[in-house]
Amino acid sequence: MGMPLELNTLVVTKGRENRIAENLFELVKEDYRLYPIDIPLDIRKTLESDSSGICVIRRVEWENKQTKITYELVSLNSTN
Amino acid sequence: MGMPLELNTLVVTKGRENRIAENLFELVKEDYRLYPIDIPLDIRKTLESDSSGICVIRRVEWENKQTKITYELVSLNSTN
Amino acid sequence: MGMPLELNTLVVTKGRENRIAENLFELVKEDYRLYPIDIPLDIRKTLESDSSGICVIRRVEWENKQTKITYELVSLNSTN
Amino acid sequence: MGMPLELNTLVVTKGRENRIAENLFELVKEDYRLYPIDIPLDIRKTLESDSSGICVIRRVEWENKQTKITYELVSLNSTN
Repeated sequence: MGMPLELNTLVVTKGRENRIAENLFELVKEDYRLYPIDIPLDIRKTLESDSSGICVIRRVEWENKQTKITYELVSLNSTN
Repeated sequence: MGMPLELNTLVVTKGRENRIAENLFELVKEDYRLYPIDIPLDIRKTLESDSSGICVIRRVEWENKQTKITYELVSLNSTN
Repeated sequence: MGMPLELNTLVVTKGRENRIAENLFELVKEDYRLYPIDIPLDIRKTLESDSSGICVIRRVEWENKQTKITYELVSLNSTN
Repeated sequence: MGMPLELNTLVVTKGRENRIAENLFELVKEDYRLYPIDIPLDIRKTLESDSSGICVIRRVEWENKQTKITYELVSLNSTN
């Protein structure tokens, strides 16, 4: 009866993001995930990699056991 | 820094739902709300009214401080 | 990195509750579960059984991959 | 009917933490807050200050519109 959910505190892209506008990206993740929206979050390529920058999620969509987020890339770490 | 969220355990339509297919409805609510998806939920016209039936939310979308849900009406109480 | 969580909208006791005061019960469930607190919830013996009554959770505690809830039994269905 | 909740992705102490063991601290925050448990989180004195270090929350307790967390201080930034 319960609904499985994963609480996420940062965005891990695994290089699967799609650019949809200048600084706007879409990313689809498996399962239903709870992401904070409208607040700055760390973004990384993999869980183990250093931060690539800071993003702000502007849209979260749950459907068919997938989570689609749309995020704005706010700053990019120069070392990446 | 925190993200305000409201945990909802039932759907209160206030008559604002839009039918988009035979048994499928869309409803927009203010603020970001956490609804269980893919499990049966009670549906009511107002918080104080009796249950109108059972629905299953199939899609949840957060954007611009609004929550849009798409739900399937699974059963309807005959007394309504 | 994510934290697995289960969103619960009702209380299923499986007969494992412990009475700690007149109308107050404690129940330990495996894993971290998100329960609504301070609002009326349906309570059942099993997921398939009819409602046993209405309870209000007054305390939720997460530790060691377990969730302990303390709830007040507000009303009891006479047929049980 | 909904339950107000705040999703938190880091720990802001405002200097109100209490040491209860070598590396273990307790902190009480107003309102019900959803914190990730058992995963590394950034810890800061104020929302605007730099990170003081990394902590792992080991226990979360909700009661009387307050959230009490118990966290382990895992690493401390030397500049603090």
